[in-house]
Amino acid sequence: MKTFFIAAIASLALLTSSCMENKSENKETELQAIFPKGEKLSNEWFTGNAFLQPLVARDKNNDFSAGNVTFEPGARTVWHTHPKGQVLIVIDGNGIYQEKGKPAQSLKVGDVVKVPENTEHWHGATATSKMAHINITNYKGDEQVQWLQPVSEEEYNNGNKK
Amino acid sequence: MKTFFIAAIASLALLTSSCMENKSENKETELQAIFPKGEKLSNEWFTGNAFLQPLVARDKNNDFSAGNVTFEPGARTVWHTHPKGQVLIVIDGNGIYQEKGKPAQSLKVGDVVKVPENTEHWHGATATSKMAHINITNYKGDEQVQWLQPVSEEEYNNGNKK
Repeated sequence: MKTFFIAAIASLALLTSSCMENKSENKETELQAIFPKGEKLSNEWFTGNAFLQPLVARDKNNDFSAGNVTFEPGARTVWHTHPKGQVLIVIDGNGIYQEKGKPAQSLKVGDVVKVPENTEHWHGATATSKMAHINITNYKGDEQVQWLQPVSEEEYNNGNKK
Repeated sequence: MKTFFIAAIASLALLTSSCMENKSENKETELQAIFPKGEKLSNEWFTGNAFLQPLVARDKNNDFSAGNVTFEPGARTVWHTHPKGQVLIVIDGNGIYQEKGKPAQSLKVGDVVKVPENTEHWHGATATSKMAHINITNYKGDEQVQWLQPVSEEEYNNGNKK
């Protein structure tokens, strides 16, 4: 009888331990990104740690370039404009998008933002969550972007209040 | 002593059961799509069950439309061409892409395909796995696509051999 009980406890302990190990492996799978992180982006144009994985280079058919940008918590672009607009498609995490003179918007997975031409704006992760978005950035002639000044701590904190 | 053993067995059984329940919840979270599935696509142009969630409509800056297409296992486009090419960005599952006269290619998460202009091709899920891709389809004038004949069972089976 005692042998039976000991065997039963040992079996259940093994089962529980195996289940919990698999559970932590599954958690890693959930968090696996769709694209490689890519290269770190210059702090001249990105505050904090942001990375770019290029996806599509401009060619005779595709008059845009596209990439995946991953922002670590706290990271964001500087203020900037695009001469022919841009599309952002959020695929991971939580972020912020703001146009000059307008309230900041929260970004979540699945959101799509059409950035208008020549409009000062910034985007990035929240202070507490990373964010990743695909961007499709159109060309006007050979230009895609004009970089401006960094987003101040005050502006960023206000953006996080949403 | 017997009471102790019974209590230990009962506790471990509860722990295992709770762990396994959480594990199946986690599995559901892993499989949560980035975009809504959208509307079922016509069997005139898609064999099997495929769905479209529109993401970006053409406008003065973005001379393309973009959407997310989800193919259930076995589903695929018919053969077709694009007058100004297309970009496919695979975000879920496993699929197949084939251009006329060339071997079929496997598609996996993170893959990017540049479909050339005026090239007969098809794409879809494998026979055993769903697949989802973002597509960015350029306009030539007001045209984006010319639909042709369905992918035969033989062609599809050959595509699955990869």
